[in-house]
Amino acid sequence: MSSRPALRVALIGTGFMGRMHAHAWRTAHRFFRLDVAPQIAVVVGRDAERTDAAAQEFGAGAAATDWREVVQRPDIDVIDICTPGDTHAEITLASLAAGKHVLCEKPLANSVAEAERMVAAAQAAPELVAMCGFSYRRTPALSLAREMIADGRLGEIRHVRAQYLQDWLSDPDAPFTWRLDKTRAGSGTLGDIGAHSIDTAQWLTGDLITTVSAVLRTFVADRPDSEGRGVGLGGSAVHGAPRREVTVDDAAAFTATFAGGALGVFDATRMATGRRNANRVEINGTRGSIAFDFERMNEVEFYDATDPAGAQGFRRIQVTEPEHPYAGAWWPAGHGLGYEHGFTHQIVDFVRAISEGAPVSPSFAEAAQVQRVLEAVGDSAAHDSVSTPVKGTES
Amino acid sequence: MSSRPALRVALIGTGFMGRMHAHAWRTAHRFFRLDVAPQIAVVVGRDAERTDAAAQEFGAGAAATDWREVVQRPDIDVIDICTPGDTHAEITLASLAAGKHVLCEKPLANSVAEAERMVAAAQAAPELVAMCGFSYRRTPALSLAREMIADGRLGEIRHVRAQYLQDWLSDPDAPFTWRLDKTRAGSGTLGDIGAHSIDTAQWLTGDLITTVSAVLRTFVADRPDSEGRGVGLGGSAVHGAPRREVTVDDAAAFTATFAGGALGVFDATRMATGRRNANRVEINGTRGSIAFDFERMNEVEFYDATDPAGAQGFRRIQVTEPEHPYAGAWWPAGHGLGYEHGFTHQIVDFVRAISEGAPVSPSFAEAAQVQRVLEAVGDSAAHDSVSTPVKGTES
Amino acid sequence: MSSRPALRVALIGTGFMGRMHAHAWRTAHRFFRLDVAPQIAVVVGRDAERTDAAAQEFGAGAAATDWREVVQRPDIDVIDICTPGDTHAEITLASLAAGKHVLCEKPLANSVAEAERMVAAAQAAPELVAMCGFSYRRTPALSLAREMIADGRLGEIRHVRAQYLQDWLSDPDAPFTWRLDKTRAGSGTLGDIGAHSIDTAQWLTGDLITTVSAVLRTFVADRPDSEGRGVGLGGSAVHGAPRREVTVDDAAAFTATFAGGALGVFDATRMATGRRNANRVEINGTRGSIAFDFERMNEVEFYDATDPAGAQGFRRIQVTEPEHPYAGAWWPAGHGLGYEHGFTHQIVDFVRAISEGAPVSPSFAEAAQVQRVLEAVGDSAAHDSVSTPVKGTES
Amino acid sequence: MSSRPALRVALIGTGFMGRMHAHAWRTAHRFFRLDVAPQIAVVVGRDAERTDAAAQEFGAGAAATDWREVVQRPDIDVIDICTPGDTHAEITLASLAAGKHVLCEKPLANSVAEAERMVAAAQAAPELVAMCGFSYRRTPALSLAREMIADGRLGEIRHVRAQYLQDWLSDPDAPFTWRLDKTRAGSGTLGDIGAHSIDTAQWLTGDLITTVSAVLRTFVADRPDSEGRGVGLGGSAVHGAPRREVTVDDAAAFTATFAGGALGVFDATRMATGRRNANRVEINGTRGSIAFDFERMNEVEFYDATDPAGAQGFRRIQVTEPEHPYAGAWWPAGHGLGYEHGFTHQIVDFVRAISEGAPVSPSFAEAAQVQRVLEAVGDSAAHDSVSTPVKGTES
Repeated sequence: MSSRPALRVALIGTGFMGRMHAHAWRTAHRFFRLDVAPQIAVVVGRDAERTDAAAQEFGAGAAATDWREVVQRPDIDVIDICTPGDTHAEITLASLAAGKHVLCEKPLANSVAEAERMVAAAQAAPELVAMCGFSYRRTPALSLAREMIADGRLGEIRHVRAQYLQDWLSDPDAPFTWRLDKTRAGSGTLGDIGAHSIDTAQWLTGDLITTVSAVLRTFVADRPDSEGRGVGLGGSAVHGAPRREVTVDDAAAFTATFAGGALGVFDATRMATGRRNANRVEINGTRGSIAFDFERMNEVEFYDATDPAGAQGFRRIQVTEPEHPYAGAWWPAGHGLGYEHGFTHQIVDFVRAISEGAPVSPSFAEAAQVQRVLEAVGDSAAHDSVSTPVKGTES
Repeated sequence: MSSRPALRVALIGTGFMGRMHAHAWRTAHRFFRLDVAPQIAVVVGRDAERTDAAAQEFGAGAAATDWREVVQRPDIDVIDICTPGDTHAEITLASLAAGKHVLCEKPLANSVAEAERMVAAAQAAPELVAMCGFSYRRTPALSLAREMIADGRLGEIRHVRAQYLQDWLSDPDAPFTWRLDKTRAGSGTLGDIGAHSIDTAQWLTGDLITTVSAVLRTFVADRPDSEGRGVGLGGSAVHGAPRREVTVDDAAAFTATFAGGALGVFDATRMATGRRNANRVEINGTRGSIAFDFERMNEVEFYDATDPAGAQGFRRIQVTEPEHPYAGAWWPAGHGLGYEHGFTHQIVDFVRAISEGAPVSPSFAEAAQVQRVLEAVGDSAAHDSVSTPVKGTES
Repeated sequence: MSSRPALRVALIGTGFMGRMHAHAWRTAHRFFRLDVAPQIAVVVGRDAERTDAAAQEFGAGAAATDWREVVQRPDIDVIDICTPGDTHAEITLASLAAGKHVLCEKPLANSVAEAERMVAAAQAAPELVAMCGFSYRRTPALSLAREMIADGRLGEIRHVRAQYLQDWLSDPDAPFTWRLDKTRAGSGTLGDIGAHSIDTAQWLTGDLITTVSAVLRTFVADRPDSEGRGVGLGGSAVHGAPRREVTVDDAAAFTATFAGGALGVFDATRMATGRRNANRVEINGTRGSIAFDFERMNEVEFYDATDPAGAQGFRRIQVTEPEHPYAGAWWPAGHGLGYEHGFTHQIVDFVRAISEGAPVSPSFAEAAQVQRVLEAVGDSAAHDSVSTPVKGTES
Repeated sequence: MSSRPALRVALIGTGFMGRMHAHAWRTAHRFFRLDVAPQIAVVVGRDAERTDAAAQEFGAGAAATDWREVVQRPDIDVIDICTPGDTHAEITLASLAAGKHVLCEKPLANSVAEAERMVAAAQAAPELVAMCGFSYRRTPALSLAREMIADGRLGEIRHVRAQYLQDWLSDPDAPFTWRLDKTRAGSGTLGDIGAHSIDTAQWLTGDLITTVSAVLRTFVADRPDSEGRGVGLGGSAVHGAPRREVTVDDAAAFTATFAGGALGVFDATRMATGRRNANRVEINGTRGSIAFDFERMNEVEFYDATDPAGAQGFRRIQVTEPEHPYAGAWWPAGHGLGYEHGFTHQIVDFVRAISEGAPVSPSFAEAAQVQRVLEAVGDSAAHDSVSTPVKGTES
């Protein structure tokens, strides 16, 4: 290990995602053969005390509070951006300008305009790796699904059915967080988890969504404002606090058409009582189907229409075998992985893109395309032309 | 039994549905206490030879080819209509005019106009029972779900998620059937199975869909025309035959708004490779959720948000217990029922509506409301206003 | 139908099993092509009033109270025995002597000695069909499993894992029934449901159990005696009644060796709280595995070890397709059957054995072999010897 | 972190388990609050080159080849033993004599005699923590099951049903490994995975197995000897190599009686084609049941017999919530953990036993009791006596 050159990382963000990335940076080279040895050189946050604590917790060498200063440091190779979406564009543009590789959490930005500036900057610096963190692409079961679809095992794709169901806002007294503030988060359920479904759907099929017809809904108009509590997901209900207006969507549903002709149905919500993290996708093609649910993340269901009649059925593949993407680096077959290793694999691929020229996935251009779909969904939902009244139900 | 008065039934239709209804008529009074004893007095079909055979097979007393004559017969109490949708209105109107009780298969009609004439006729003859055959209402698991929702176990409803996935048209060489002919069937997947989802959703929630935004899609434009083959579902692929144009939809997807504020997502298709009959519904409310899949028809999943934290989860209820709707008349707990008994229970309830004044469900008025939703879906899908283009994907 | 000769049946027994057989006799020829038309000519029971009511309910032509008289009647072709096990031998011997075909519910008898007399009588009258009612053989999913194993899809069998888990006696105050009286029932869980597991295991593998090592256990020593209540399975708890001694086992567990070398593990109980009717079997061979649970009776799981590495997994086959045993006579694919049709299919095969010379399954000889395993289990549990040979399997 | 005292660990063993423990040592203090900071000071292995590589890979400070020297080093606090079972006793005794805390992988030893020497040594040094590595105790779903049972949620326990099904030896040409050599491994499936089932069963129920009746079976008598290949689980089939005799069991099955009266059925195998790592346990009590399968390690099924009639069913609890054991330190609800974190949690508890006096689980005494059951199983299988008493459990 000592013989490998170091890859020095500045990690920006001390929240849930920062913690997750730190774990991935510490773990990737322990299980995968990398040509360079990553180190978290510095953790950057706004609050000095909190950032110091995070640096300790994350096993980082140092803490800093001024990201502008950090991105200029000559000893830093990588800027890893784990902050809310409203800051992504500015930090990315500065980092690329300073000659740093960039890993930017999803969604790429809070607007298409910002995303397009980021794409332009990345394209202007082809020697740098610029990647967006749609980590679900590295869940082995979804990686396998992608391989199978690319190999033609599903034939021509007709249906894409994506649900992302959570319930941490089901309780009307669950506390306000920055994720419910449009200024910070850009949108609500749509950009947070709907974006994952969109990326997964386009990436799995290798196809693009061309039109959408959408509904957004906010079921709970205001929530207890508990200042700093409930910063992650699923804070406990708070009673008696002053309430703050929710400015984003609680749920997003839309139909979609793909360039290749497939029909998409998308349904994302944080109000699906009892569904903790049901990130599901089912794809039906002329030759077969796949189905996945993140609540059982180590499995994918595969139906092969070329199996003989009478012996056909969805088979549950445990994606934990040496033949499967990423899985060979881990435990014996049947011993599952956890949520975190989508991030570990993301670091592996990001590092290999830097050190070996491996392909970048998703590129900023791909991530910007997700942003365009999000924008179209918002536009569609904002216009009443989409809804046809049912006769006899007019009030 | 001999002491009970007979209820004499004319069964119109010799196809799959006729056969199913005949089994239900023969079976209902063997397991449920009824005040009258049903008899299939006559089976009516267009083809004399085929109808004779059906009468034998169904255990009926006689066969006939002229339904107009039959509905006038004084010895007939009930007209049971199991023909394609284009004939429902005419037969129903004649039957009610002749003073017969009517059980009419779904969809009630092929148009709202026809449906409304049928409603008016039924309302003009309140002494007659007029019921539409949405048989899934009598699947015990769904009946239980309805009871639980009506009892407030789910709280206020926010999400309705209905999928009806079949795959018998997935093969482009699956043969043409009357179900693919708009003139006979009215619509395709939408009216055949999407109609079930709509009825189930409105009935379970006790709410009405007020607006929709829809896409219809025909993936396979023409199919082998094999004259009389492939009359049911899932005929084997046919090669070399002349091809006939498919004039209905293969798939229908739409978002919906309910009067009470719930958000609906509907997805019906006959092209979901590997899904034989996945009639699924999930409903999320403020206090709990239920989920159902007809492929496991004896189970319903129930999530109770009032369970203590840490002990919450979807519980699989096997709806085969004495406490459950209809189930007490059958086998011991854990011994499941089959598809057919939704129809058996439908006969039980229809007969009790006649002999005991039990409530009619669904009434023609309820079934007409389903028809209005189907029409709105068709209208929505026909107008391009519903689709918002995604920038950057224009060809 | 009128042209087919009648097959006249005397049904002995008015309880749960009699009711089930009656439904099967009424239904079989409606869905399957039979050369003869079965009729329930007479129902026989000890109590005249109750038997009259049963005859009405079952759709039978007449009622009688003296089975000895009935088996001598020249107009009767078939004796169908649905009484407790202590009466099977006597009725069967008289019926065969009178030249009647016999269908006898399982277990064949309450002792090996009785079973062997029945086998001898059947072998002495080869022109008569003598069959034992292990109805689970006719569950399509298990019939398919049997076909797959016979076709070599599992290779050489190594493991047989059979559980039959019920819970209707879990409550110590569930009432006493004849099934808990050793004199009537012969044994408890072992003979009632363990017998099914034994038959299924031997039939699926086409192999015989040669040695067992067993434990029997009675967890609840006495139960409320409520005279006539709780006659079936799962009567409600009774409080305050005098208690009667339970003289049979509540649970039976044993390991077993098969002649072909497979290792068996059997576990049957009526105290598995929450398991209503989990009749499960899993078989592992060198080339594949199958798994089945009656609580999802329309499915079988199949694992094919010859699938390519990386694409292997248990596939859920819905056994509802035209290619599957019995299923083609019923509903479209994906529309499941209920518990009762194992009995319907049993009648179909029994009638075809009579009218077409189709094979009898299980023969009395096969059913007697099950009885020998039951006896060995009882002996093993009673004596401290690990391996108790099953009589008749010594090489 | 810098302010916390270091806890210096010598990790003995460079194989699969060493790698796993190293990951756990690196990770535990990143997610859990510990009073000391663990460091892997040295990795010990027989082969110098391989051990150097492991030290690099594991992030350890140094490598060594002489464990006897290492256990005497004053700068070492903990000896973590990840070698095959034949070395456990010697290393443990030397370590305790040198005043080191010991974490020893399971099974505790290869014989009861060795295990008892280890227990005596641990009891003679009460100031040292001596713990055995049955890591499945720290799978959150099983930890939760244990809590629920201890809280009386299942009532009195009647049935324990444990299966541990793997298939990596299903292929007769899967290569020989040290795990198939009785001298190294002590026993085969029995001691490797059957031991887990025994520990889990006794620990979950808080009860002891008193008698067993067992069968052991070796299905494949010899295997290709490929020298160093196939060192872990599931090596690929090897053809043409010389074959070496398998001296351990491929499968172990036994019935068991618990001191408290429960009936146990155990079934462990490496030949269950298609079952990669189905470590399953189901426990039925008078008030409820739990069921677990490690292939879905983030879930436990719970049946509550006190739920109202008609609303009873097994509920799937995702054990990923703040209320659940260990889970609060990790990701949001619904985001599962992987296999490795049973080991991470084991380190957390081991460290807390050292630094905070937290209870040790399992103690050497508990692990020795598992060894006694293993011995009784072996004795029972070797001798024709149905019930073999487990030493130390005689009343």
